[in-house]
Amino acid sequence: MRKCYKCDKKAQVYLPQHRLAFCKDHYLEWFDNRVEKTIKEFKMFDKNSKILVAVSGGKDSLSLWNALAKLGYNVDGFYINLGIGDYSQKSKELALKFAKKIGKTLNIVELKDEIATIPEMKTYDNRPACSICGTIKRYFMNKKAKELGYNIIATGHNLDDEAAVLFSNTLNWSIEYLKRQYPVLKEENGFIRKVKPLCKISEKESAIYAILSGIEYIEEECPYSVGATSIDYKLFLSQLEEKSPGTKLRFYSEFLRKMYPILQSYEEKVELGRCEICGEPSMNRICSYCSLKMKLQAKKEKTV
Amino acid sequence: MRKCYKCDKKAQVYLPQHRLAFCKDHYLEWFDNRVEKTIKEFKMFDKNSKILVAVSGGKDSLSLWNALAKLGYNVDGFYINLGIGDYSQKSKELALKFAKKIGKTLNIVELKDEIATIPEMKTYDNRPACSICGTIKRYFMNKKAKELGYNIIATGHNLDDEAAVLFSNTLNWSIEYLKRQYPVLKEENGFIRKVKPLCKISEKESAIYAILSGIEYIEEECPYSVGATSIDYKLFLSQLEEKSPGTKLRFYSEFLRKMYPILQSYEEKVELGRCEICGEPSMNRICSYCSLKMKLQAKKEKTV
Ligand SMILES: [Zn+2]
Ligand SMILES: [Zn+2]
Ligand SMILES: [Zn+2]
Ligand SMILES: [Zn+2]
Repeated sequence: MRKCYKCDKKAQVYLPQHRLAFCKDHYLEWFDNRVEKTIKEFKMFDKNSKILVAVSGGKDSLSLWNALAKLGYNVDGFYINLGIGDYSQKSKELALKFAKKIGKTLNIVELKDEIATIPEMKTYDNRPACSICGTIKRYFMNKKAKELGYNIIATGHNLDDEAAVLFSNTLNWSIEYLKRQYPVLKEENGFIRKVKPLCKISEKESAIYAILSGIEYIEEECPYSVGATSIDYKLFLSQLEEKSPGTKLRFYSEFLRKMYPILQSYEEKVELGRCEICGEPSMNRICSYCSLKMKLQAKKEKTV
Repeated sequence: MRKCYKCDKKAQVYLPQHRLAFCKDHYLEWFDNRVEKTIKEFKMFDKNSKILVAVSGGKDSLSLWNALAKLGYNVDGFYINLGIGDYSQKSKELALKFAKKIGKTLNIVELKDEIATIPEMKTYDNRPACSICGTIKRYFMNKKAKELGYNIIATGHNLDDEAAVLFSNTLNWSIEYLKRQYPVLKEENGFIRKVKPLCKISEKESAIYAILSGIEYIEEECPYSVGATSIDYKLFLSQLEEKSPGTKLRFYSEFLRKMYPILQSYEEKVELGRCEICGEPSMNRICSYCSLKMKLQAKKEKTV
């Protein structure tokens, strides 16, 4: 029988990549500490920051919100109702329930009132749903956070997410993307600072944390994410991880430690302007959200 | 029925990553051209160079020797008899037979006359056999090439080899190794120029070339290479390749095109000295070959 690394109780959790075993309480403590350490390592924010967690209703975003609240940060939630049938209905309910449980505010944007639901947009736009959804989320997170007076957006991206994206960008040596792969995106040009405090926490670790904390979360993946390539890369990395525990964490953190600084000296600053329609930051005259909206309106008018 | 891309004959070979099909003759022509293109792309050598191919008796080194001879280069072979039982015996015979067939010189070093066979050294040194063998091969290739008046050493490393090493160095972000991952190692500090003209040819392509050219090669891997980690990475990359043909080639060539130049600006030149015993280039006072030899002698004396 494995014992907890911190006390004499029977271990409930074993983490092969760290070679650590914990009882329930000491696991939760370890997780919170690891999140705190990551926040400090990358100078993400402090106790004076007004933080908005992007909540999907899944294990990662709720675990993150839970840990930040326990650590004493000033942190509310932000939920975008994408209008994806049962999936959105259920995830919204769980997000609201959790907000009530920890006594924090959940700010909600109803996509159908702002532009249109994702399934509706999908019929007008033939990009993959995940790509439309990404544009939408980035746009509203940034805009609403500013309107509501927050200065930090925290997302629940975990180590598996970050390692898979890094892997994909590395296979192609996409220098422009690799340059920007960092758990902090600084505030600039009308963008609010964005941070990923779970970047060194694996998917499994975050699921265990949610379960042991008694958090009810939505287990289904978004129906549109099925078949996305990043999922393949996650599978490959998991195989490597199984053969040699710690590979994923090493791949990601050594990138940040050794390669990221080298890439920074090659940074060519891209001058960001403002969207002529909505005033949000944009590389082009019209931002990608407004382009999406115009395209949608044009097609709607056509079909009338 | 697939037809040859060049003529109307039935195709015998299909290359999914290039989406090309060839009859036997046009495949051999494609292979030779691809080797020639790689030589030109990386400015490896020209028709005035005196080239020595490191021959193991396997498909890669014999295919390389064959292609270079057909392309009209001035190229002989170099074989080190490692003294690994049947494996060495058989590979030496096949190398000699091939040399005779194409009418070229095969220079041979008998390891047992120079220092000791690999199996013998293995009993005195507890590093992995592949690591001892690497030291030995690098040392003699360089020393003998100079003595014999060659100015280029060409090795049969193929795309699968290079991609696996790149993958391994990338998983750890070993900047020092990544910096040196290039198919040409320039002549400097007493080292002869080393080149890898098959770096854009896959293992499968080189095997097909050997078979269609009627080359007899040793199919067994070196008995000591079994279980080496690079083999695992080859498996992983092959899985990726199967899902998405071209991944391996893209990973390797995009590294050379986009990341390698960035890493070069970070090069700190290491001043190489000469070995105090043998005079060959060395990072330390005594080169790793001579250290090996001293260790061996010390242990032999002890056991007498
Ligand atoms: Zn405990
Ligand atoms: Zn706009
Ligand atoms: Zn043909
Ligand atoms: Zn020496």
